[in-house]
Amino acid sequence: MKKASIGIFDSGLGGLTVMKQLIHHLPNESFIFFGDTAHVPYGNKSPASIKEFTTAIIKFLNSHSVKLIIVACNTASAVAIKEMQRQSQVPIVGVINPLKSYLQANPQYLRIAVIGTQNTVKSKAYDHLIENTNSEITIFSKACPLFVPIIEEGLENHQIAKITAKEYLNDLIKHNIDLLILGCTHYPIIKNTIKKIIPENITIIDSATLATDSVISYLKTNKLLNNTARQINIYVSDEPKQFQKQTEKYLGQPISNVEKIILK
Amino acid sequence: MKKASIGIFDSGLGGLTVMKQLIHHLPNESFIFFGDTAHVPYGNKSPASIKEFTTAIIKFLNSHSVKLIIVACNTASAVAIKEMQRQSQVPIVGVINPLKSYLQANPQYLRIAVIGTQNTVKSKAYDHLIENTNSEITIFSKACPLFVPIIEEGLENHQIAKITAKEYLNDLIKHNIDLLILGCTHYPIIKNTIKKIIPENITIIDSATLATDSVISYLKTNKLLNNTARQINIYVSDEPKQFQKQTEKYLGQPISNVEKIILK
Repeated sequence: MKKASIGIFDSGLGGLTVMKQLIHHLPNESFIFFGDTAHVPYGNKSPASIKEFTTAIIKFLNSHSVKLIIVACNTASAVAIKEMQRQSQVPIVGVINPLKSYLQANPQYLRIAVIGTQNTVKSKAYDHLIENTNSEITIFSKACPLFVPIIEEGLENHQIAKITAKEYLNDLIKHNIDLLILGCTHYPIIKNTIKKIIPENITIIDSATLATDSVISYLKTNKLLNNTARQINIYVSDEPKQFQKQTEKYLGQPISNVEKIILK
Repeated sequence: MKKASIGIFDSGLGGLTVMKQLIHHLPNESFIFFGDTAHVPYGNKSPASIKEFTTAIIKFLNSHSVKLIIVACNTASAVAIKEMQRQSQVPIVGVINPLKSYLQANPQYLRIAVIGTQNTVKSKAYDHLIENTNSEITIFSKACPLFVPIIEEGLENHQIAKITAKEYLNDLIKHNIDLLILGCTHYPIIKNTIKKIIPENITIIDSATLATDSVISYLKTNKLLNNTARQINIYVSDEPKQFQKQTEKYLGQPISNVEKIILK
């Protein structure tokens, strides 16, 4: 079981922000990554469709005998985590639940803003988790649906990204928030632009980092850390070449195996 | 055959710009519209995947005994029109070819800019058509990949849309173009914003209008005009409720039949 790969998936590039951190911290782990690029973005698809897509992906990753599956997508974590946990033979780690222990360790934050896709915000998954952790916290949330296409187009440092970020975040800033949660695995890519337009006293955390910490801790506790040579296999539901290029650019290393697979 | 419906499809809202004009001009025609909302947007999906999606849609519309199919999507028209024409038992009208007769009727335009999705621009479908029509025309083209998500989010009149449009169009304007072709069926929705930032002497035409003219002319010439009561049936591959709302808002009339169907 130790030697099994870690399964990880997202609709597109966002999941790479999680895999990049895991690759950095866990040099001997192998990964099977699935990018559902035929359906990207998930943020504005219906929960019913997202459940169909994730059911097929969980089945696919289980068939590759992974030891753990990371749902590296906040939208899927928000609307389908329970179904996925029922369907999977191996543990499922989402990117939302790891926030709980962070808030318990950092009780000073009492005015928290969450940004994410339409679906993540509508699901109120963050609101429920935060309320259950500390009912004294005031929560503000805002859907930022253009961030994903801006990032997928590589425009995260462009003037368009700055204007859009100001438009989305100005209201949140006025509420004197002390913590901003980047509730979408794409958003670490646009973090520098966000940093420039919000006051310095606001702490920014991203769900990709919290999920990474949670996975490392799980593998250590359960003595599941691998100690052999790494392999990375990537599967996508659309054209593999462009995704390979984007992956190599983002991870900063060559990736040899990117294969298209249509899940039914 | 006269009484058969007109089949029409797009990945999302864009196709409605064509259907709206047809509804207006042809009060006795019935329509079967398919919106491939599980895969929207098509603009950044691979040609191979778009061919798979459109193959299933053409089969679906043919099974509903339509008299004609309108590919109300420039991306699909650019990358898959020949395959669709081979697969369909009824005529296929794309949104790119109708430009030919417009250019023949308006030979004064010699510096033409085309804007569209990444796929449409990469395919060079417009370049080939324009060169074949009049080799004296100089063509400039620019992919505007954020316009579709901006429109799908209802932000077409927002400051974000203005900044993005300026960013995309400034270079084209510098080339002293005389005609701007909106080469994506979504773009008529953002036309007012575009108008405000380009010089008044540049004529704007949209492919939705050209395709509408072409369809009306085809039906008249082939004596296929209907004279009975209209029916509109809409099918989508994702959640029907949101699409129903968007359709009603855009068409300005109640729509009763929106049904989800998954094509295999």
